[in-house]
Amino acid sequence: MNPLQVDLGERSYPIYIDSDIYNNLSYYQKHISGNNVLVVCDSNTAGHYLPAMLDMLGDYHCQSITLPAGESHKTLDTVSLIYDALMQHRFDRNCTLIALGGGVVGDICGFAAASFQRGVTFIQVPTTLLAQVDSSVGGKTGVNHPLGKNMIGAFHQPACVIADMSTLRSLPERELKAGLAEVIKYGLIDDAEFYYWLNENLPALLDLNTEKLAYTVTRCCANKARIVAADERESGQRALLNLGHTFGHAIETAMGYGNWLHGEAIAAGMCMAARFSADCGFLANDTVEHIKSTFIRTGLPTEPPADMTSEQFIELMYRDKKVRDSVLTLVLMNDVGGAFLTSTFDTELLRTTLFQTLNK
Amino acid sequence: MNPLQVDLGERSYPIYIDSDIYNNLSYYQKHISGNNVLVVCDSNTAGHYLPAMLDMLGDYHCQSITLPAGESHKTLDTVSLIYDALMQHRFDRNCTLIALGGGVVGDICGFAAASFQRGVTFIQVPTTLLAQVDSSVGGKTGVNHPLGKNMIGAFHQPACVIADMSTLRSLPERELKAGLAEVIKYGLIDDAEFYYWLNENLPALLDLNTEKLAYTVTRCCANKARIVAADERESGQRALLNLGHTFGHAIETAMGYGNWLHGEAIAAGMCMAARFSADCGFLANDTVEHIKSTFIRTGLPTEPPADMTSEQFIELMYRDKKVRDSVLTLVLMNDVGGAFLTSTFDTELLRTTLFQTLNK
Repeated sequence: MNPLQVDLGERSYPIYIDSDIYNNLSYYQKHISGNNVLVVCDSNTAGHYLPAMLDMLGDYHCQSITLPAGESHKTLDTVSLIYDALMQHRFDRNCTLIALGGGVVGDICGFAAASFQRGVTFIQVPTTLLAQVDSSVGGKTGVNHPLGKNMIGAFHQPACVIADMSTLRSLPERELKAGLAEVIKYGLIDDAEFYYWLNENLPALLDLNTEKLAYTVTRCCANKARIVAADERESGQRALLNLGHTFGHAIETAMGYGNWLHGEAIAAGMCMAARFSADCGFLANDTVEHIKSTFIRTGLPTEPPADMTSEQFIELMYRDKKVRDSVLTLVLMNDVGGAFLTSTFDTELLRTTLFQTLNK
Repeated sequence: MNPLQVDLGERSYPIYIDSDIYNNLSYYQKHISGNNVLVVCDSNTAGHYLPAMLDMLGDYHCQSITLPAGESHKTLDTVSLIYDALMQHRFDRNCTLIALGGGVVGDICGFAAASFQRGVTFIQVPTTLLAQVDSSVGGKTGVNHPLGKNMIGAFHQPACVIADMSTLRSLPERELKAGLAEVIKYGLIDDAEFYYWLNENLPALLDLNTEKLAYTVTRCCANKARIVAADERESGQRALLNLGHTFGHAIETAMGYGNWLHGEAIAAGMCMAARFSADCGFLANDTVEHIKSTFIRTGLPTEPPADMTSEQFIELMYRDKKVRDSVLTLVLMNDVGGAFLTSTFDTELLRTTLFQTLNK
């Protein structure tokens, strides 16, 4: 299969999407810098994939580190564990980090690669659907601050991404569904055709049909690559990718990192964005219901946690990275595939929508 | 006085070099993003300059944080204090950080600005000679790792630099001398004329002659800006700026950060580089002596600490950021103003030179 190319000038890189490729050296060789390689995995991926990867990299001076798994460990302290390993092994600027795992491993490892010696090579091997369609494209790396998600980070593009469909077979069903939330997002943003294709093919995807998964990952990455290439630093249209995220981040922060999966939080977040879009008069109520039914059929939440309050949402949403000088920009929809940015919505109406959704 | 322009395409910025400008709002206004400003100083600069700066910035939503002073605090933990302040004050991506202090404050604050929300605006107000001639040009930001100096960081250019000669009046004499080490370095690298001018004017500079200091800062910044503009990411010639630094960093690491000032360590380091250049047959012995005498007249060390060993130097030098795949690149000299990069020197001869210098 031809790789998908992410076009970012001298920072361009390929995404290889296929089955049984994560342990095939030919995909890595031309992207590895130098002879020193650190494989960064977590306690979820170490058992499944690390032995084969270390075996494959036998000709390199290869070390590995296993991080504690989960969003609650996406902290500066965990990044420090990687720095410590790099320093202890005396790795220099011409080394390569390989992120073997989900989005959390990729974000942490990417930030370590961005900041170790002011930037070293890294390769992403995303092993969850969420990471394959989202965090492996775009160069956003980083960790959480106790007071906000992804607040500390850098833009740092990988040398390549190796998305292996066979790694999805080890994924817990809940994680697969959470990944599908980001998949559906691409349809909602600007690809209605894909949204309807997904509605047809949800059962096959939930059943891990390899071909359809590869098609899905390719289409999502192509959509994201196109949006990112046009706006690498998120000064404009790239923010469309945040559909559902301002609501979703509020849920994640309120519930404690890791209690709701990111995909679950943004599924509920997209339903809230759809509801508010309808309340603003942009979106038909039928479309809101269609969107909700898609998430329900995927097995994802469509409502925020019952114990959150509307005031808590407002408070957390206005602490979001999308806030500039106290002005919040939201991603709303005027149709399936018709997402748009706005900062001129009625704040009181937002409070009303939230209050009606939460009954408090 | 016209500002000196650092030419880096869309990341270009001006350096304002004059007296009594740090508290003049007109230098800041067009470079501040948004309304939220965090002034980052340390316990050395807070008392001298912070009140006037907060007064000047009265029309902004301005906060300040005072970091513990000294190289030993140039750590990720100190960067976290800045993140905490930014989050507690709810600063968003459209905020501005002002680094008010020496190189340590600038490096820490710069890295916080590079990594907070993946990059916010920062302004450097260097209050030491060292910071004015060195760390305020080039965009290198970062902190130390317990096992190596400046190992964690990012390239992040300031929006502008405001170098105020009047702030040097509060500088301890030892710090002034340490700053002159970096000044002399620019002469040694590729500006022999400046090296001889410095030899004439050392007494005036040590006596804080404002005009001559401004000339010195301008010439050093122009030299550094030229070198950085040609090689922003240090893939080649920019490494000349590391003259004396591989030896010097070994001293700093061995002695514990902050016991030898950076300028003191690189003064000894440049003398060691000169000595090794002569032992390699590149540099005349008379020139080595002339260089040493310049540092002696400045009141700077010309020998490494007596309790270090040659093996310790080799060990620490090969852990330097300039090492790639175990190959060390050194900056040597074939004349005053004739520095060059080499990685093909005789390692055994380096051991011999170090052994002869240290007698162990």
